[in-house]
Formats: sequence, C-alpha cells, structure tokens
Amino acid sequence: MKKYFAELVGTAALCFIGCGSVVLGGFGPALASAPIASLPIAFAFGLSVTAMAYAIGPISGCHINPAVSVGMVVAGRMPASELPGYIIGQVIGAFVGCGFLALILTSKAGGYDIPAAGLGQNMYDAAKGFGVLGAFVAEVVGTFLFVTVILGATQKKSATPVAGLAIGLTLVIIHIVLIPVTGTSVNPARSLAPAIYVRGEALAQIWLFILAPIIGAVIAGLLFQSKALAED
Amino acid sequence: MKKYFAELVGTAALCFIGCGSVVLGGFGPALASAPIASLPIAFAFGLSVTAMAYAIGPISGCHINPAVSVGMVVAGRMPASELPGYIIGQVIGAFVGCGFLALILTSKAGGYDIPAAGLGQNMYDAAKGFGVLGAFVAEVVGTFLFVTVILGATQKKSATPVAGLAIGLTLVIIHIVLIPVTGTSVNPARSLAPAIYVRGEALAQIWLFILAPIIGAVIAGLLFQSKALAED
Amino acid sequence: MKKYFAELVGTAALCFIGCGSVVLGGFGPALASAPIASLPIAFAFGLSVTAMAYAIGPISGCHINPAVSVGMVVAGRMPASELPGYIIGQVIGAFVGCGFLALILTSKAGGYDIPAAGLGQNMYDAAKGFGVLGAFVAEVVGTFLFVTVILGATQKKSATPVAGLAIGLTLVIIHIVLIPVTGTSVNPARSLAPAIYVRGEALAQIWLFILAPIIGAVIAGLLFQSKALAED
Amino acid sequence: MKKYFAELVGTAALCFIGCGSVVLGGFGPALASAPIASLPIAFAFGLSVTAMAYAIGPISGCHINPAVSVGMVVAGRMPASELPGYIIGQVIGAFVGCGFLALILTSKAGGYDIPAAGLGQNMYDAAKGFGVLGAFVAEVVGTFLFVTVILGATQKKSATPVAGLAIGLTLVIIHIVLIPVTGTSVNPARSLAPAIYVRGEALAQIWLFILAPIIGAVIAGLLFQSKALAED
Repeated sequence: MKKYFAELVGTAALCFIGCGSVVLGGFGPALASAPIASLPIAFAFGLSVTAMAYAIGPISGCHINPAVSVGMVVAGRMPASELPGYIIGQVIGAFVGCGFLALILTSKAGGYDIPAAGLGQNMYDAAKGFGVLGAFVAEVVGTFLFVTVILGATQKKSATPVAGLAIGLTLVIIHIVLIPVTGTSVNPARSLAPAIYVRGEALAQIWLFILAPIIGAVIAGLLFQSKALAED
Repeated sequence: MKKYFAELVGTAALCFIGCGSVVLGGFGPALASAPIASLPIAFAFGLSVTAMAYAIGPISGCHINPAVSVGMVVAGRMPASELPGYIIGQVIGAFVGCGFLALILTSKAGGYDIPAAGLGQNMYDAAKGFGVLGAFVAEVVGTFLFVTVILGATQKKSATPVAGLAIGLTLVIIHIVLIPVTGTSVNPARSLAPAIYVRGEALAQIWLFILAPIIGAVIAGLLFQSKALAED
Repeated sequence: MKKYFAELVGTAALCFIGCGSVVLGGFGPALASAPIASLPIAFAFGLSVTAMAYAIGPISGCHINPAVSVGMVVAGRMPASELPGYIIGQVIGAFVGCGFLALILTSKAGGYDIPAAGLGQNMYDAAKGFGVLGAFVAEVVGTFLFVTVILGATQKKSATPVAGLAIGLTLVIIHIVLIPVTGTSVNPARSLAPAIYVRGEALAQIWLFILAPIIGAVIAGLLFQSKALAED
Repeated sequence: MKKYFAELVGTAALCFIGCGSVVLGGFGPALASAPIASLPIAFAFGLSVTAMAYAIGPISGCHINPAVSVGMVVAGRMPASELPGYIIGQVIGAFVGCGFLALILTSKAGGYDIPAAGLGQNMYDAAKGFGVLGAFVAEVVGTFLFVTVILGATQKKSATPVAGLAIGLTLVIIHIVLIPVTGTSVNPARSLAPAIYVRGEALAQIWLFILAPIIGAVIAGLLFQSKALAED
C-alpha cells in the first residue's frame, strides 16, 4: 500500500506542476502566440519527475506513469501483480493533482471555465497541427525514448545517483519536440484526468494517449528484456 | 552559532539572487508583458537553493526557510531547540540580502522607489489574478511538495549527492507554476523582508505567506514522521 | 553488434529530438524572428546526449557522433577496429531518427515540403550570416571543446556519475553560441542525414560538417593522448 | 606547467562560449529589446564553468578566474607560489578565447567592428543603468557568493561529484541578476581580454572588474580560512 500511496502523491505532483504551468503559470495562453512558452511547460513536466524521483523513488521507484509501470513489467523489473496497484494509485493521483488546480482556479478573477479554457489536456488537431498518424507515431516514439532512458539508467550494475535527473531531463526535451503535435503525453494517467475534466475532443481522443504510450513502453521493455539494450 | 550564521548567509544569498532577478535582472517589469520572464526568476530562486545547499549544506543542512526548518522538526530530523536559532538566522539573512539589493538600487539611474517599484515581494491580487483562497491553497500545496522533496531526498539510507540539485529544481518548477498566483513564497523569511521594505498590501498579506507555507511543511513532515512516505 | 545497435538507437534519438525541436517543436521558424528560440533547440540537442549517455552509455559509451568516436580512437580509448561499426551504426541511426520526423511531418496540416522547409540541417550562409572561414573555425573549436569535455570527464581515475550531464550541457552551450553561424553540427552523422533529405546547399556544404568536426576531435584526442590535458 | 596550460584552455573555453553567446549567438543585440536574452547568456557563461570543471578539473581544479585562485590561496587551499602561473594562464586563455571569436567575426556578412559592436565586455552605465557604487557592490557580492559556493562544495569531507554542476549553476544565476548592472564579471580575466579588444569606456572601467571581484573572493576566502563557514 505504501508504494501505491507514493505513486498517488508523485502523480499528483506531476499533474499539479505540469498541467499547472499551463493553467496557472500562464504558458498555455502564451503558447498560442510564441513557441518559446513550451520551454517552461517542458521544464515543469520533466523536472516534476526529477523532483518526485528523489522524493518517492526510495519507496516505489517513482513510475508515476502507467506506461512506465508496463515497461517495467515487460522488462522483468517488476512483478505483474503490482501493476494494478501502481496504475490505480497513478490515476487517482492524477485526479488529485488536477483537482487542486481546479480548486485554485475557482479563485481566479473573472472565473475559469475548465471545458472552454482547458486543464493542460493532450490533443492533436488535424486541422491546424498534426493528424492522428503523426500524433500516434509521436507518442509511440516519445514514450519509447522515455522508457528506454528509464530502463537504461536504473540497471543494477550501472545504477547512478543521477538517474532521476537524466530521466526528468529526457521528459523535458520530449516536451520541447512534441508539444505542438499532441501537447506531449507519454503518460496515460497524465492525459486521462484532464480529459475527464475537459471532455469533448480531449475525451474522444483519449484512446490514443492510452494506447500509443503503452506500445512505446512495451517496445522499450522488450529491448531490455531481450538484452538487446541491457547490460549483461 | 556556526549553523545559524550559515543559515543567515544562505538566506541572504536566496533573497539577493531571487528578489534580485526581479529588481536588478529586469524580469519583474518584463513579467507584466510576457509570462516567459518568470522562467529566469524561477531559476534564480530555485538554483540559489541548489548553490547554497552545496555551499553551507555541510554546516547547517541549508534550510534557509523557516517552513523547511519546521518540517524538519515535525519529521523528527532536527531538535526543536534549534528552531529559534535557525529562524532568527534566516530572517536576519533575508533582510541582509534585500539590504544589498536596496543599496545597489540607490545607484540606479533615475532613482528607485522601493514601495512603488517593489523588491520582489509576494502578493496575491484578487482583482486581476487569484483570490485569497487560491493563494492560500497554492502556497500550502507548493510548500508541501517542496518539503516532501527535501525530506525524501535527504533520508539516511537513500541519501544522494544530487539532493541539493533536485531540491533546487523543485523550487524552480514551483515558481514556474505559482508566480502568477502569489509570486511564489513557500518561505516566510523570503516573504517577510521584502514586505517590510515595501509595506502596504504586501505587509497586509504577510500572514498568508507565514501561515500557508508552515501548514504545507507540517503536512509533509507528518507524512515522513509517520513513515507513510519515508523509507523504513 | 550490441554496441553498434546501441549507437544506432542513440543517434536516432539525438536526431529525432534535436532536429525535431526545429521541425516539430516550431523553434526553427521562431528562430527567424527571435534568437531566444535557439535556447530550446540547444537544450534538445544537448540533453538528448545526456539522456542517451545514461540509457546506452553502459553498452557503447554513447558516442552517437563519428567525431567523438575518432577522438576516442586518437586518445587511445577505443581500438580503431571498432570505428567502422560505430560510424555505420551512427549514420544509420541518424537516418532512422530523421525518418521518423519525416513520417510525422507527412501528417502535418497543409503538408510539409522537406527540401523547402528543412529538416534541421546544418548550413552557413555567407550572404546573411557567416562565411566558410568562420563556419569552419567555429565547428573545429566547438568540436574541440565538446570532445575535450568528453575525454576529460570520462577518465578512469576521475570518472564521475555526472559525466553524461556535463557532456550534454556542454553541447547545449555550444549550440547557444554557434546556431547563428552553422546551426551547430560538431557531429558529421547529425549533419549528413538531414542534408541527404534536404539536398541543395546543405548537401553542397556537407564536406565542412564532416571535416571540421573531425579535425577538432583529433586535436582534442591528441591533447589527451599526449597527456597534455589528461590525468597521469 | 600542465596546470597552467589547463587553466589557459579552460579560460579560453569560458570566454569563447560566454562572450560568444553575446557576439555570435545574437543575444547581445537581443538584450537591448528584451531581458529574456540574458538567460542564454547566463547559461553560456555558467555552464562553460561546469563543462571545464569536468574537463580540466582533475588537472588544475578549474579556477579559470583569477579571483577564484586568490580565494583559494586566502582559504589556504592553494600555495601562493602557484598564483602567478594560474593567473598568467587564465589571462592568456581569455585572449585566446576572444581571439577565436574575433577570427570568426572577420567572416561575418557586412563585417564586424569590434570597438563599436563589442566583444562581450563588462561595463556599467551610470546614465542609463547603474552607477559605480551599484556596480562595485554588485561585483563584490556576486564574487563573494560564487567563491563561497566553490569553497563550500569542494571541501574535503563533503566533496561531491556534483560540485562542478553546482558551481556552474551558481554562475548562471549570478548572471541572471547582474547582467543589467555590469554585464556580470566576477572574473578579472574574463573582463580584461574583451576590454583590451574594445577599449574606450570598457578599458577605463577595467579597474573595477579587477578590484571588486578580488575583494569579494578575499572575503569568502577569509570566512573559510577562519572556519566560520567551513566544515571542521
């Protein structure tokens, strides 16, 4: 239970800080006029993983992402029996993080209409941005790279105190690249909670942000399970 | 005494660099026109904690924040008897850091009126930004996350040389999210000194920036004291 | 073979993220109006080396750059017999990374004409920017600095867990300086694949982005081989 | 001699990257219109120290700054007899770094007039920015903080692999604060070479950028020499 509670706290932190940079930090509206606004959003999402890696890593390993937990199971690093507890903790945590954002937003001058103004949800926009194919490939490749760094940096023999930093920075740069494509998910829990709050198109597309990250994570897991990328 | 002097120096550095990015670095006025200016402010506050963690950490643990010291006591990591010395050192340090800024500002072309132009003070603005509820929740959650990373990253068994970096980066991303809400305090000493310089609304609201951070820190401390988030 | 496959994956990641920040992230077009857009591009290229250093470093050392592999051989850190395999893996990887970008771009609203709109290629522009002499010197000096940090940070006696971070951050700052000069290569594989996609002037200049980085890397390699900069 | 050569290479790298971000990277002209341009300049200067710390640190300790070397002597960490060699290496290195910038600039379309357009020199501007008092205090405080982090993070008992990173990040945030005041020196060698290239007001003010950093470094050195901030 302690592990699952840690995952809950960690995923809440990820969503509060990551989605919070969009809706509280002001970088969501700023993105519309200048792509540089994706840099602080990228730091917010990525470095919240770094923060939590050192906060709750000693307890649960800090997956705070169902795709990562799946990759861990595929790579043989976690028993499959723990998967449901991890994922439930992560999903509840995502709602907790978004819930605190929603609470703070009630206090915004002029009010804040979440379905209209958003909560940092993931979406592709075939009309103005990239279509479903591009979005799907982007999320598969992005999650593959993310989970590859996680699995590579946390191997037993080559374990490093810097792993949490390297992993978080990887998420930073994936965001720098993919924000215009999908907003960058690579994490089904992080996508699900805002989609439920926002509904509409975000909820209609949620299948992609569950399926594509899991595929990317499974491929990474298999490369390590087969020792193709793992230390001997 | 050595510990308390180290806290004084560290808190002076935090205020000089953090508040200095606003009043000397030019990012305060820039913030009014573009949210991207909060990124360098965030780095200034956050990484000054990282800097000091490695400079004075070996002496005092580098709290440089009364809320952190309270969290340490609650978590059972510091005897309560040291709390007054830590807090006095921190508060004096905050005034020293702000004092050096005020001294440099006397030399600014055209002069600089601190009460009018500010000194990096914390404030919420119910008319244009977020109200008192949002500000209070934001400071509680932000401080909770900050102190959770501090307590998690400095546990004995899982101690890491990267702790000071992870803690500072956590403060960076909390700033990225909360600057539009309160300017981001999570640190009563860092709020008190500029408020005394600036007076007016900043001083009227100072209770929030003392109370909310301490509540957030106490919650984090209890989670570690109870072993809910701590290693066994 | 495992080493060469790791280099392939790592170089694919470098090109996907680095060149992707330009063509997906939106910072290429943004660069035309404001130099600040080079900051996220710099993080994307530099930190993808950090990411891969911890992901595949335990397998291949993570060169993901033919110039680095040449420098390693010159410094006596790698047998020359492994050089062809490393370089072949790196060049294939660069095409794989760019290929995924090209695939995602097919899905862009309004289409995307790679030869016209670019794929993050390296080029100097004597008419508007810097001439061939400046470009050549810039790439020699940039690669010399990059390989010097790599060779210095990975020496046996002074090996550090932070090496991958320091190396990636070095590439970040080289980009901050050289993007207006050449787009910053310091890596023949990273230049070759986009040039083949884009053709025209990028392909006509490719000799510089192969020759200059190798010269810079050889100079660094000799300084370490001769012990002028190496630990005893 | 090896140490002094390492200091030469390191200081050349610092000036090439730091001053290069201004004159090649395009952030100098950009600074005139938006303070955000100081962020990449800050990363360039600060992280070049991090880069060199891991590249040449094992040889010379990577001072690449006469003020740091003075602080080391005052703190009793380096014999005074090595000071002249360190400083000569640093000053020559600064000219080498600036010389490579000057060489690349000869190739710039439309030419580049160094005395008119600058080479990243340090200056205060009493008419538009801050006067001599503000500049002097800023450089003393900035150097004091920088050398305090250096001396604190490299103490024997609390030595950390992250020291080079913490030190470089400290220089980043000092730049974020002080660029509008003096351009940020805290390093006489880094100020001297551009001033000789640019002459005029930069050369007339060079005394400040030699004297103030040394005073700041001496104060920090004394605090560690007296054990007021040093571990026992």
